[in-house]
Amino acid sequence: MNQIDAMDRLVAEFCKLPAVGKKTAQRYAYFLLTQSEADVRNFADAMIDAKTKIHYCKICANFTDKEICDICAREKKEPIICVVKEPKDVIALEKVREFNGTYHVLHGVINPLEGKGPNDINIRSLLDRVKNENIVEVIVATNPDVEGEATAMYIANLLKPLGIKVTRIAQGISMGSELEYTDPATLSKALSSRREM
Amino acid sequence: MNQIDAMDRLVAEFCKLPAVGKKTAQRYAYFLLTQSEADVRNFADAMIDAKTKIHYCKICANFTDKEICDICAREKKEPIICVVKEPKDVIALEKVREFNGTYHVLHGVINPLEGKGPNDINIRSLLDRVKNENIVEVIVATNPDVEGEATAMYIANLLKPLGIKVTRIAQGISMGSELEYTDPATLSKALSSRREM
Repeated sequence: MNQIDAMDRLVAEFCKLPAVGKKTAQRYAYFLLTQSEADVRNFADAMIDAKTKIHYCKICANFTDKEICDICAREKKEPIICVVKEPKDVIALEKVREFNGTYHVLHGVINPLEGKGPNDINIRSLLDRVKNENIVEVIVATNPDVEGEATAMYIANLLKPLGIKVTRIAQGISMGSELEYTDPATLSKALSSRREM
Repeated sequence: MNQIDAMDRLVAEFCKLPAVGKKTAQRYAYFLLTQSEADVRNFADAMIDAKTKIHYCKICANFTDKEICDICAREKKEPIICVVKEPKDVIALEKVREFNGTYHVLHGVINPLEGKGPNDINIRSLLDRVKNENIVEVIVATNPDVEGEATAMYIANLLKPLGIKVTRIAQGISMGSELEYTDPATLSKALSSRREM
């Protein structure tokens, strides 16, 4: 077999990306070799540039290249904080264009199996924000899985004694889905959360 | 929406990789931001290192970091050349561990629709090799699609007048597959290429 150290190293690096196996990593590496050296240098430069320029917003911990992210810097905003697990979730929620408050990125969820407790995620600064920014409501928009629910419960127990309204995004059947193909857990949640029409 | 130029640039670079859409590119970019700066620099360095060190083997045009690739440099080798489309194909064939000849990488196939003629792929040096290396057989192992077949035909017509045995890898049903689920084109090929037992 044709062993090339530089190739193996590049494939190993691509393998670190989420959901990239050896075959895909090889495909990416071979593709890069077919590009011009200038293109490859641009790519490498974009990586380092992003890593060095982008950091957490001082307020909400979302990614930004400024001191305070564009969302926290918005002028007219409601005193509502939407708590999410990851920066990606902010993008998803911003696409809806209906929420005018700010976000708070936890960068993880409470997960005892992985040894992640409340102090390992960005919860403490949420408490400071709620007090300092005169927040009236905190929407917990963590994922509807075991860890997301546990984290939501923890945040609710933390904030309710302060007289803050804590809400959870609704769970139920997705728009456009069919009952027939909806999983039992979702159907059960949709039934128990039914609303009067 | 939170616009970060450095992020957009990195996502755009990842989008250039084969079969990577915007969602996947974002996922990769966010993953990189969660890594240490040293790790990201290592990744970027691996890219540039691979691109600058790896080039085509002077003989077979496979990727190598030496002047002549390990396969061409092997001592005991049969005077047989296996012609493939891409370096990836060499890896696949080498895994079989049955072929002791050398390879010849075309870096593409004849594809009139994309304006790729015989002069756009690495065919000319194959002719020189056949003459200089006293080759007795050329196995054409391009893919069994329209372009691969056309390229195989072209190579056969080029080499046969020189008295070289030109063969094509066999086409038929895959090992372990079921007739019921085999496509008609493959079945037809398997029937017409039947051999006496």
